[in-house]
Amino acid sequence: MSAPTLVTVDDVRAAADRLRGSIMRTPLIPAPWADPQRPLWIKPESLQVIGAFKVRGALNAIGRIDPDVRTRGVVAYSSGNHAQAVAYAAARFGIDAHIVMPEETPAVKVARTREHGARVVLCGAGRREAVAAQLVEETGATLVPPFDHPDVIAGQGTIGLEIAEDLPDVGTVLIPVSGGGLASGIGTAIRALCPDARIYGVEPELAADTAAGLRRGSRVSMSIEDRNRTIADGLRSQPSELTFAHLQHVLTDVLTVSEGQIRSAVAELAIRARLVSEPSGAVALAAYRHHRLPPGKTVIILSGGNIEADLLAQIVAQSPEVGVHQGN
Amino acid sequence: MSAPTLVTVDDVRAAADRLRGSIMRTPLIPAPWADPQRPLWIKPESLQVIGAFKVRGALNAIGRIDPDVRTRGVVAYSSGNHAQAVAYAAARFGIDAHIVMPEETPAVKVARTREHGARVVLCGAGRREAVAAQLVEETGATLVPPFDHPDVIAGQGTIGLEIAEDLPDVGTVLIPVSGGGLASGIGTAIRALCPDARIYGVEPELAADTAAGLRRGSRVSMSIEDRNRTIADGLRSQPSELTFAHLQHVLTDVLTVSEGQIRSAVAELAIRARLVSEPSGAVALAAYRHHRLPPGKTVIILSGGNIEADLLAQIVAQSPEVGVHQGN
Repeated sequence: MSAPTLVTVDDVRAAADRLRGSIMRTPLIPAPWADPQRPLWIKPESLQVIGAFKVRGALNAIGRIDPDVRTRGVVAYSSGNHAQAVAYAAARFGIDAHIVMPEETPAVKVARTREHGARVVLCGAGRREAVAAQLVEETGATLVPPFDHPDVIAGQGTIGLEIAEDLPDVGTVLIPVSGGGLASGIGTAIRALCPDARIYGVEPELAADTAAGLRRGSRVSMSIEDRNRTIADGLRSQPSELTFAHLQHVLTDVLTVSEGQIRSAVAELAIRARLVSEPSGAVALAAYRHHRLPPGKTVIILSGGNIEADLLAQIVAQSPEVGVHQGN
Repeated sequence: MSAPTLVTVDDVRAAADRLRGSIMRTPLIPAPWADPQRPLWIKPESLQVIGAFKVRGALNAIGRIDPDVRTRGVVAYSSGNHAQAVAYAAARFGIDAHIVMPEETPAVKVARTREHGARVVLCGAGRREAVAAQLVEETGATLVPPFDHPDVIAGQGTIGLEIAEDLPDVGTVLIPVSGGGLASGIGTAIRALCPDARIYGVEPELAADTAAGLRRGSRVSMSIEDRNRTIADGLRSQPSELTFAHLQHVLTDVLTVSEGQIRSAVAELAIRARLVSEPSGAVALAAYRHHRLPPGKTVIILSGGNIEADLLAQIVAQSPEVGVHQGN
């Protein structure tokens, strides 16, 4: 089996041209309350209209479909941020989106996806891939995968281009890892443009299949039951062959964080950075706080901010010390 | 008594030149989940390093002090965002800051002010102006007022310049009003650059002295006990002669909002815009939601995000419906 072809920084640059004006070019937000040895900036992808970076990959992938084929619409299966990303991106292109979601998806997520004009198809547990395939068959629409596609990786990589433009002497970049599309894309851009930077993936300890896989040199599978234990519900996927090959090429290492560290990071982002993060979006700050990183300018990717009100309230209420724990 | 000289858009432009590189040029964040007849953008001043717009006025005012005088430092009295703004701005200029705070100020606010290297002077109730005057006398430092100064107004006005640049056809701008420096500055810029735009101040019903004053044509005083009833602790001041004259000149009207509307807006900003707001920072969204505004592109100023963890948790927990109340 031949090694997959890797996305290049030129692919990422082409994606950036395609996305210009359709996404928010998020600012790097300085965090002067952090460790002075490791000056910190936050890249808040939570401020994208759908609340997560996923809109970049979805727009790039849909933009790359042949226009004659694209008019037949797109299909995606997701209960999370990818669903809203594809729904939003399809609306921007004026095409139909069919989003397959499990029946147990919270009503608010279904409502948010429908807000963008998408058709939501609910299905039984474990049937979403089959239902999506059937929709592709029936409608001629194109499937947009959440991470396992070069155009999705290149779209997410535009975040890395923006970091390299705004902070060319960045020393360390910390990126959440799940299916690996985000870290593959950002890593590709940073590796090319800031060759001295260290690029860390970050995973929950309870879903650390990529950390184990990179150590072993080949993908490690964890059961979905095990991966479902983490509160970081956006980080329960595993890399594909394509993204794993990218991660092997671009990552310095993968760091892991505990559930308590993730919760503390959500609270710290809310109270000190005034940014709402979902648990998955906060793992990079958790790694910054709890690993001994090399000194130098550091960027964390806050990948998404779609958290339910009750969970946010509970986490913030349980962390009263967050307001002062960095005080002096 | 002659009418005060008003700040001009050229003063605001000069302030923008002075601030460039020292503040965050905040993006306008689109809020596609809002009312389609009144497309909404949020100007998140909560993302400034001190969590509020106040840093703009403080930097401009300190930048305008004669350099020989400036070396003697600055003094401010505040228990809120102005304290941290002056502390931060003084540190940028490498000068001393003496911040007078009431003894009952929460420890976290004192710690945040000290983080920037300021000297905090605690004083008894009602004595802060006298203590500040004594510090000026002893040290030769310059007092930086929170709103009653043309340089402070011009600094806050840079927000208006940015809005006019980013959204030149803005139809409506909604701005929190307390001492009135923010609305005076933004109003000056918008009135000059977007002459057709409507500019509304927003006040809590429980501290609506400016609404009453503009209706009457002269300032109305409310007791501090009355003004202290609102949860919006940053909106308990009253305009000075200088800011009131600006508000008379630039505002279309002042809208008022209830305490419940303010709380709902804090929750909506957190869950739908993924932005943490203090109650004072959320009044413009409350007015957008609860007043019948003219159709057209609308910008709200989210003026600050410094809220205590417990209060944020309580407000978000009490608003479970926020996730879906705009769903369709």
